[in-house]
Amino acid sequence: MATTVNPDLRKERENASFVPEKITNFLYGGPERVQKKRELASLALNDPDYHHEDLNFMSREQQYETCLKKSLLMTTKIKQLKIDAVDEHFYRSAVTGPSPDPLGLHVGMFLPTLYGQATQEQKEKWLNLAENYVIIGTYAQTEMGHGTFLRGLETTATFDPKTQEFILNTPTLTASKWWPGGLGKTSNYCVLMAQLYIQGKSYGPHPFMVQIRSLQDHKPLPGVTVGDIGPKFGYDVIDNGFLALRNVRIPRENMLMKHSKVAPDGTYVKPPSSKLAYGTMVFVRATIVNDSAMALSIATTIAIRYSCVRRQSEMKPGHPEPQVLDYVTQQYKLFPYLAAAYAFWLTGQTMMSVYMTSSSRISKGDISVLPELHALSAGLKALSSWVANVGMEECRLACGGHGYSHASGLPRLYANLTPGATYEGENTVMMLQTARYLMKSYNQSLQGEKLAGSVAYLSGVQPVPAAGRTRNMLDLGALCDAFRHRAARLVHEAAMQLRNERQAGKDQPDAWNAASVDLVKAAMAHSQYFVVKNFAERLTDSRLDSSISAVLTRLCQLHALHGLVTNSGDFLEDGYLTGSDIRQARRHINALMAKLRPDAVALVDAFDFPDGILNSILGRYDGNVYQHLLEWAKASPLNKNDVHQSYHKYLKPFLEANRAKL
Amino acid sequence: MATTVNPDLRKERENASFVPEKITNFLYGGPERVQKKRELASLALNDPDYHHEDLNFMSREQQYETCLKKSLLMTTKIKQLKIDAVDEHFYRSAVTGPSPDPLGLHVGMFLPTLYGQATQEQKEKWLNLAENYVIIGTYAQTEMGHGTFLRGLETTATFDPKTQEFILNTPTLTASKWWPGGLGKTSNYCVLMAQLYIQGKSYGPHPFMVQIRSLQDHKPLPGVTVGDIGPKFGYDVIDNGFLALRNVRIPRENMLMKHSKVAPDGTYVKPPSSKLAYGTMVFVRATIVNDSAMALSIATTIAIRYSCVRRQSEMKPGHPEPQVLDYVTQQYKLFPYLAAAYAFWLTGQTMMSVYMTSSSRISKGDISVLPELHALSAGLKALSSWVANVGMEECRLACGGHGYSHASGLPRLYANLTPGATYEGENTVMMLQTARYLMKSYNQSLQGEKLAGSVAYLSGVQPVPAAGRTRNMLDLGALCDAFRHRAARLVHEAAMQLRNERQAGKDQPDAWNAASVDLVKAAMAHSQYFVVKNFAERLTDSRLDSSISAVLTRLCQLHALHGLVTNSGDFLEDGYLTGSDIRQARRHINALMAKLRPDAVALVDAFDFPDGILNSILGRYDGNVYQHLLEWAKASPLNKNDVHQSYHKYLKPFLEANRAKL
Repeated sequence: MATTVNPDLRKERENASFVPEKITNFLYGGPERVQKKRELASLALNDPDYHHEDLNFMSREQQYETCLKKSLLMTTKIKQLKIDAVDEHFYRSAVTGPSPDPLGLHVGMFLPTLYGQATQEQKEKWLNLAENYVIIGTYAQTEMGHGTFLRGLETTATFDPKTQEFILNTPTLTASKWWPGGLGKTSNYCVLMAQLYIQGKSYGPHPFMVQIRSLQDHKPLPGVTVGDIGPKFGYDVIDNGFLALRNVRIPRENMLMKHSKVAPDGTYVKPPSSKLAYGTMVFVRATIVNDSAMALSIATTIAIRYSCVRRQSEMKPGHPEPQVLDYVTQQYKLFPYLAAAYAFWLTGQTMMSVYMTSSSRISKGDISVLPELHALSAGLKALSSWVANVGMEECRLACGGHGYSHASGLPRLYANLTPGATYEGENTVMMLQTARYLMKSYNQSLQGEKLAGSVAYLSGVQPVPAAGRTRNMLDLGALCDAFRHRAARLVHEAAMQLRNERQAGKDQPDAWNAASVDLVKAAMAHSQYFVVKNFAERLTDSRLDSSISAVLTRLCQLHALHGLVTNSGDFLEDGYLTGSDIRQARRHINALMAKLRPDAVALVDAFDFPDGILNSILGRYDGNVYQHLLEWAKASPLNKNDVHQSYHKYLKPFLEANRAKL
Repeated sequence: MATTVNPDLRKERENASFVPEKITNFLYGGPERVQKKRELASLALNDPDYHHEDLNFMSREQQYETCLKKSLLMTTKIKQLKIDAVDEHFYRSAVTGPSPDPLGLHVGMFLPTLYGQATQEQKEKWLNLAENYVIIGTYAQTEMGHGTFLRGLETTATFDPKTQEFILNTPTLTASKWWPGGLGKTSNYCVLMAQLYIQGKSYGPHPFMVQIRSLQDHKPLPGVTVGDIGPKFGYDVIDNGFLALRNVRIPRENMLMKHSKVAPDGTYVKPPSSKLAYGTMVFVRATIVNDSAMALSIATTIAIRYSCVRRQSEMKPGHPEPQVLDYVTQQYKLFPYLAAAYAFWLTGQTMMSVYMTSSSRISKGDISVLPELHALSAGLKALSSWVANVGMEECRLACGGHGYSHASGLPRLYANLTPGATYEGENTVMMLQTARYLMKSYNQSLQGEKLAGSVAYLSGVQPVPAAGRTRNMLDLGALCDAFRHRAARLVHEAAMQLRNERQAGKDQPDAWNAASVDLVKAAMAHSQYFVVKNFAERLTDSRLDSSISAVLTRLCQLHALHGLVTNSGDFLEDGYLTGSDIRQARRHINALMAKLRPDAVALVDAFDFPDGILNSILGRYDGNVYQHLLEWAKASPLNKNDVHQSYHKYLKPFLEANRAKL
């Protein structure tokens, strides 16, 4: 087996205009962080205890078992190795790759809910057990018939003052909890979201700690029906579960009461603000933006490396087959998503840092910033996960036939990452939440209020475009202006559309529904403007080395120009840009792609994903694709024998019968 | 279990403006065909021999075995039942659904290649064996390192005049045959495409009949290495295979010599035309257009029915949760793909009928029509499979969380149908083939030649648009004009771009590459114009009942208007349409969707897919989604026991160790 690097890839790396390490440092926040990341990743990847078996060759049940085992081992090792909480994700992602983790909901939702919504006493009771994995929990909110719309939940928690208990029930089939990760087979506890009823009155959904399985033998407790919801597109390793409860009684103290409370006599105490839960949502959405960036980084790493190894067709008679990345159509498929990967990587960082800054204000009781953050994060979550969805598939298709093989890693990546468009709020609903805030802000500005933050630009809307100007379409300032103008105009148009529907006699909900396509369009434009502006602003960092500043500027220009030409109608419709601007933009894109071509491999190398995380034969760092494709295929379970058992069972009698009939 | 129809779905059907049966007859070519289709489908679906097990609960190996068994049984039954060849596909598709068939390549490629490329003697030798399944074959063309570019194939067939044999070799790793369906485990023969060498001279790729496995014990023959290429995104049931040959000798008579010939003394006789193979390609591409139509029909059937059963959120305070199809954003996701399903269904029919008409001319030696047909079919194959790819996923995402479950049928549909964008010519390469023909035609027209057929409109290009006109954007004539103008302009622009690149000093191949993004755009516009025009023309059929003509006209308008607003920049760039036209178009789309809303279920019912073919709990005809979701989940292998074995193996020791440490 070859141990040298494929010569085509070696040449690519030699010809790059910059040192990838510099961008790696920029992306991860400095050389110390990169060092830490590499240390922890190699600790995980070189640990023989993990085996790192190929999930592609396993049944779903085997995948679940294998990953559960791995996840428990990882949990134990993280404690043994005393890995710092801040660095933990470096270790975790090296163990699991971009695959989900059977204990993921325990770590990502169960524990945080206890931190955020349990009282001090409740924390004392459960946190130690949960942090030390004596109990394993999940977060059971979604129901078979109810998703994004929380108020529609049907599960009930009825207070019984006589016994000081809540009685939990699943009153209908559609009320069954459905989807929570780890619920089916793994968890023995959950935080259950249920409609609180006190003396016949409903108080809306609240969180309750519920034990669902025995700590002795793991059997479901009386009144509890629980199981796996069956195989899915991806998430094979996760036991997403269902749960039905029949008169299950829990003590009053099991309602998580940090915000709302139920007193022993049944008195209900409201939370100080209904917006408090927004903080966590902003955080979770920022992680989805990060996931989208990761999905695109991994997908473009695989596709761009493979496109330098793969040779195809004949560009010039008699010449050797060119690397497929030399085809401009291939560049046009991949480079815009490479640019988007960088754009969302930086967007996610900004969101996290805004969230951190505002968190301290929120913890001091100042929640004024929350509505804006909430609206912004909804749109960015939706935009980034939509783009990632399309981009991952574009990368897969750009790898031709081999992209379709699980050897490429791309089908599994897609199947595991595409739920980001659905969970934590379905994307269209998210965009409409952003739009609601935009409409509110727009109306405030019409009434003379001065807007701040990410919507400040709506104050200064000038719907009439400056005509006849000649623009330099490579200028990032001009590009940001164009995206800002488009967003402002589309917000204005959506508002006009809403007004027209109202004037035509529709009530507010019907008008909103009728205008919703325009509203989504406006929210999308607003989110895209934020991403472009954020990318451009990050390039003004004076610490940036000039070699990487040059290449990152090209990526930013490409990101903006590609967004512009693929939505050219939005810029042309009111004459803000002219046909000649758009033609200029297209020519610039071609020129930028030609300039980026020699740096493409270095730009994906800079993401610094080890092979163990990429899990892709096409995307291997050493480019030795073909040898490993064959080795991998030979390990396929169907190849255990030269003649498969199905021959003896079915094919042989069939062939013999046919021969006899001749 | 409920046996009645969900009341929401029942109401939808009662309120439709037309009788779905009328459209079913229109789609399938008359009531007799529909009758035949239903007869054969119910014969297959009600035959207990097939079991119809759920593949979602099986490992890949089990899936392969199950489907092989089913496929052999189907083959036997088709003969027993004496099903007419014309009707066979009705029976087949009811047995396999939209899933591929392990003997698919034998039926779809091996036999047709023998029909089309074997001499009379060769037919006498092999056809009987192949038609009666004494031998099972596949078509081995694609290699590990070589796909769409046929001339790049590396496998060699060297003529040895001494022994009157060809010596077959796989000279390099990348020359291994890779991907052919049924090659890995099932087939004992194949048609092998290999570079023909005679006395050191290469004559390009030719087809050879090669036995690869023993007819006695199915073992690979000496010199043959063959196996499965491993798991893929979809096609789990197919043993796509690899094949390497080492000095395998076959008699001279095993080269398929209907077109090219090698005489005993090594004299090579060229085929009469290099374009003869085009005929089959046109046919195969038309079937991919049909597959794309089927993919979209199935996906929209599932998503639209489910969107009437599913209720979500609160549109008006205090009102019940509305059906999700009442959300305009949901309509905007699904209705354009419903329209596209119809558009491609009719496109595929037209292509097949054009192919049939031209076939008789071609068989008489008149191949003048082939280049145009070839170019047109390449673009339509690419356009339809791209739209189907995006549309299937849009439908899945529109079903929210449950769309992600294999219970929806949508992930499996997507994974099995998405290869249409890659096989039989990668889509971008296909579009560039269309573009090549468009450029040639455009240049001919510049030189005063009159163009005919699908490119006739290029003769009359008027790049200067008629300004200031007021258009009725609902008028199908005006819409066809707009698409024609856009196509003509983009062909013109691509030609200008090519010329500019040449004038700037690039040679022809480099100029072609530099202009390729514009060339693809032009080919796409040309293909879209054909689809819109074809849809509009089919509506002029005087036999159409007025009730269905009305609703089909709305679909056609929606298809055209949606294509127009999503590509609005193309129409605005040269001022052919104005911003106010585009706004008018958007308002028309909203109005059309509102009119189509009550007919949506009837429009998918008209596709007439029985539940056994849909294979979707969300898309069930009776709409009893939730009960069946639960039943299905309970059958998941992970639910064999309440407490999964992994608890005893891994979870219990983990939990106990943690408890002990407290």
